[in-house]
Amino acid sequence: MNPSTAQFLLAAKQAEIKALLQLSANCQLVTSISELVHQLQRERGISNIFLASGCELFARQRQQQLQHSTSAELQLRTALEQQYLHAPQPCNSSRLLSGIALALQGMDHLAELREQIHQQKITPLQATEAYSRLIAAWLAVVLESADLACDASITRVLVALFNLLQTKEYAGQERAWGAMGFASGKVSTELAERLLLLQQAQQHSAAVFLEFASSAQQQQWQQLEQSAAAKQLQQLRTMLQQLPGTATLVPAVSDLWYQFATDRMDAMHQLMALLTADLQQLTAATVTAAQQQLQQHRHKLTELTALPAGSGLTLLIDPSMPGLYGASVVPQTTNEHGITAPGRSFYQLLSEQAQHIRQIQAELCDARRAITEQKRIDRAKLLLMQYKKLSEEQAYRQLQQSAMQQQCRIADVAEAVVKALLQGG
Amino acid sequence: MNPSTAQFLLAAKQAEIKALLQLSANCQLVTSISELVHQLQRERGISNIFLASGCELFARQRQQQLQHSTSAELQLRTALEQQYLHAPQPCNSSRLLSGIALALQGMDHLAELREQIHQQKITPLQATEAYSRLIAAWLAVVLESADLACDASITRVLVALFNLLQTKEYAGQERAWGAMGFASGKVSTELAERLLLLQQAQQHSAAVFLEFASSAQQQQWQQLEQSAAAKQLQQLRTMLQQLPGTATLVPAVSDLWYQFATDRMDAMHQLMALLTADLQQLTAATVTAAQQQLQQHRHKLTELTALPAGSGLTLLIDPSMPGLYGASVVPQTTNEHGITAPGRSFYQLLSEQAQHIRQIQAELCDARRAITEQKRIDRAKLLLMQYKKLSEEQAYRQLQQSAMQQQCRIADVAEAVVKALLQGG
Repeated sequence: MNPSTAQFLLAAKQAEIKALLQLSANCQLVTSISELVHQLQRERGISNIFLASGCELFARQRQQQLQHSTSAELQLRTALEQQYLHAPQPCNSSRLLSGIALALQGMDHLAELREQIHQQKITPLQATEAYSRLIAAWLAVVLESADLACDASITRVLVALFNLLQTKEYAGQERAWGAMGFASGKVSTELAERLLLLQQAQQHSAAVFLEFASSAQQQQWQQLEQSAAAKQLQQLRTMLQQLPGTATLVPAVSDLWYQFATDRMDAMHQLMALLTADLQQLTAATVTAAQQQLQQHRHKLTELTALPAGSGLTLLIDPSMPGLYGASVVPQTTNEHGITAPGRSFYQLLSEQAQHIRQIQAELCDARRAITEQKRIDRAKLLLMQYKKLSEEQAYRQLQQSAMQQQCRIADVAEAVVKALLQGG
Repeated sequence: MNPSTAQFLLAAKQAEIKALLQLSANCQLVTSISELVHQLQRERGISNIFLASGCELFARQRQQQLQHSTSAELQLRTALEQQYLHAPQPCNSSRLLSGIALALQGMDHLAELREQIHQQKITPLQATEAYSRLIAAWLAVVLESADLACDASITRVLVALFNLLQTKEYAGQERAWGAMGFASGKVSTELAERLLLLQQAQQHSAAVFLEFASSAQQQQWQQLEQSAAAKQLQQLRTMLQQLPGTATLVPAVSDLWYQFATDRMDAMHQLMALLTADLQQLTAATVTAAQQQLQQHRHKLTELTALPAGSGLTLLIDPSMPGLYGASVVPQTTNEHGITAPGRSFYQLLSEQAQHIRQIQAELCDARRAITEQKRIDRAKLLLMQYKKLSEEQAYRQLQQSAMQQQCRIADVAEAVVKALLQGG
C-alpha cells in the first residue's frame, strides 16, 4: 500500500471533522443571533409605542430594554470575533461572512437609530422598518448557516429553528402593524388585509417548523397555541377582521393586542431555548463521534501497516463497484467475500468511508430541500421588488396568489418567476 | 464604522479567493486525471487483445503503453501530494479526498493486475472489468470536482469535460466488448444489445457535453463524428446489428473495429485538450479578477477610514432591503439615492458584494443541475445493484426503460427509484 493512499483516507476524515467544528461554531452563532433577534424584536415593539405615545409610554421599559439588547449584541460580537475573525481555521464560506458583514453594518448604525427615536425625529413606521431590516439581515445569516451544515440531523434542527424565528418575526410584524393601526382608532381594509397576510405567513413558517421539529418541540408548540394569550389574540384577530372600517376602537384594545402578542412571542422564545439546547447537544455528540472514528481509522491503519503486504480485496476486483457495463458478475454484499487479508481491511475502511459519505449526502439532500425552497422564495421576492418595483408585501402576495391560482406550491411559482424575470429582463 | 464589520467584508472576499484557489488546484487535478484515464483506456484495449491472442499480439505495444501509463500516474501522484497533502491550505472536501483515496487504492494494485495479465492468469473480461472500475473511480473524482466548483463558468467547463470523458469511456467499453465478442467469431443477440446500450449511453453523455460545450468545442465534436474513422465505425455498428447471430465473422473485422474505435477515441482525447486548455485559462483569469477585487476592497476601505465618520446610507434605511411586510416605500435602485457620504460608500461595497454572491449562487444552481442529475442516476444504479442484485448494465437498462415507458427523464426515474428503495428497505 502506497502511504499517500492512507493519508488521503485520513485527510478525508479530518476534513469531515473540520467541517463539523465549523458547523459547531455556526450553531453557537445561531444561538447568539436568536437571542439578539429576540431582544431587537422587544426593542422594536417598545420603541414603537414610545414613539406613538409621544414619549409618554414605555420610556423606562425602553431604557431597560436597550441594556438587554446591548448585552445580547456584545455576546454575539465576542462570539463572532473569536470564532470567525481570530479562529485558527477561518470560516471558508464567503456567503456566510458576507451576510454577517451586512448585518453588522446595520448594527453599527443602531446607536444613531436609537438617538433618532429618543429625539422623536423618526415616525413609528420608519423605526419599525429599520428594526425589521436589521432582523431580516440576521435571519438571512441563520438560513445561510443551515445551508452550510454538513450533517443531516443538525440541518433539520437548524431548519426548524430558522422557521420558528421566521414565524416569531411575522408575529412581531403583525404586532407592530396592529399597534400602529390601532393608534389611529380605526382598522382600515388595507390593515385588515395586511394582518391576514402576516397570519398566513406565520402559518406557512410554522408548518415547516413543525415538519422538522422533534415531538417534544411539536408538543410545546401545541401548548403555546392553546395558551390563554394565543387564544385571546386569536379572538382579537377575528374581531378585527369582522369590524367595519368605520368602527372606532377604544385605546384599551391596542394595549390588549400588544400584551397578548408579546406573551405569545415570549412563549416562542422559550420554545427556541429548547431548540438551541438540542442543537448544542447534537453538535457536541456529532463532533465527538467523528473524532472517535478518526482515532479508529488511525489505529486500524497502524495495525495494517505492521502486517505483511497482502493482495486482498481491491477496488479493481470488487464486484459491487461500478465499472464495465454488461459485466455478468452479480454484485454481492461485501460481508460475503470472506477474505481476511490485510488488503481487504484497508479497502473495507475505504469502502465504509465512501458509503458513510454517500449516506450523509443523501440525507442532507432531503433536509436541504426546505432551505432551497426558502432561498428561492426570498430570491423571487427580491427580484420582483427590483424589477417590478413592488413592495415586499406586494411581491409575496403575488407569489402567494399565483400559487393558489395554479394550484401549486409557492416555491415552484418562485422558481418560475426567477427564471422569467432573469431571462425576460 | 466598527472595524470588525470591514474585517468581515474582507474575510468574505478572502474566502472567495481561497475557494477559487482550491478550485484551480481541482482543475489541474482534473487535467491530470483526464490524461491518466486516456492512458488507462489505451492500456485496457491493448491488454485485452494481448490476452485474447495468447500474448502473441501487441506485446511490444503493451510495454510501450505501460511506460505512458506510468508517466501519467507519476504526474498525477505528484500533483496530488503537492496540492492536497502538503498544501498550505488543505482541501476541505471529505467527499473529494475520500474519492481520491478510493481511486488510489485501485492504482496501488495496478502492478499486480499487470503481472497477472503478463502471466495470463486472468481472462480478458476480468482484466477489462478491473481497468473499468479504476477508470470509473477516477471519473467519480472528476464529477466531485465539478460539484465543488464555486464559479458557474468553470462548473460549465467541468460538466462538459466530465461528460466528454464519460462518452469516451462508454466508447472504450463498446470497443472492449466488440473486441472480446468478435474473438468468438460470432455476434450474439446479447452482445448486439449491449453494444446498442453503450452507443445510447454515449449519445446521452455527448448530448450533455454539447449542452455545456463552447461553440469551438461543439464544432470539433461535429468534425470528429464526421471523420472517416467515425463513419466507418458507424457502418460496422450497423452491419453488426443486422447480422444474424449465426453469421461467422472474419478476424479482420475485429481488427478494423478496434482501429476505428481507437481512432475515434484518440480524436476525443484531442478535443479534451481543448477543454483542459480552456479550463486553465478560465481559472487563472477568475482567480486574478477576484484578487484584484480584494485589492480594490482594501483600497476603498483605507480611503473610507481616512474620512470623517458620516451617517450615509445604511442597511437600516435602504428601501431595497427586505424587512417589514407592507412597508409602503417602493424600492429604488441604489443609484438613485444620490447620497455620497462615506457611510454610503462602505454600504455600497457591502451591497455589491452581497449582490455578487447572489449572482454567483444563482448561476451555479443552473450549471449544477447536470451534476445533480448525474449523481442521482449513479446513486440509483448503485442501489439497484445492491438491493436488487442487478448488474450495472441491468440497473441502467431498467432506469432507461422506465423512463421510456413513463415518458420522463432518466434522472426523474432515478430519483423515484432512490426514494422507493430507501423507504421500502
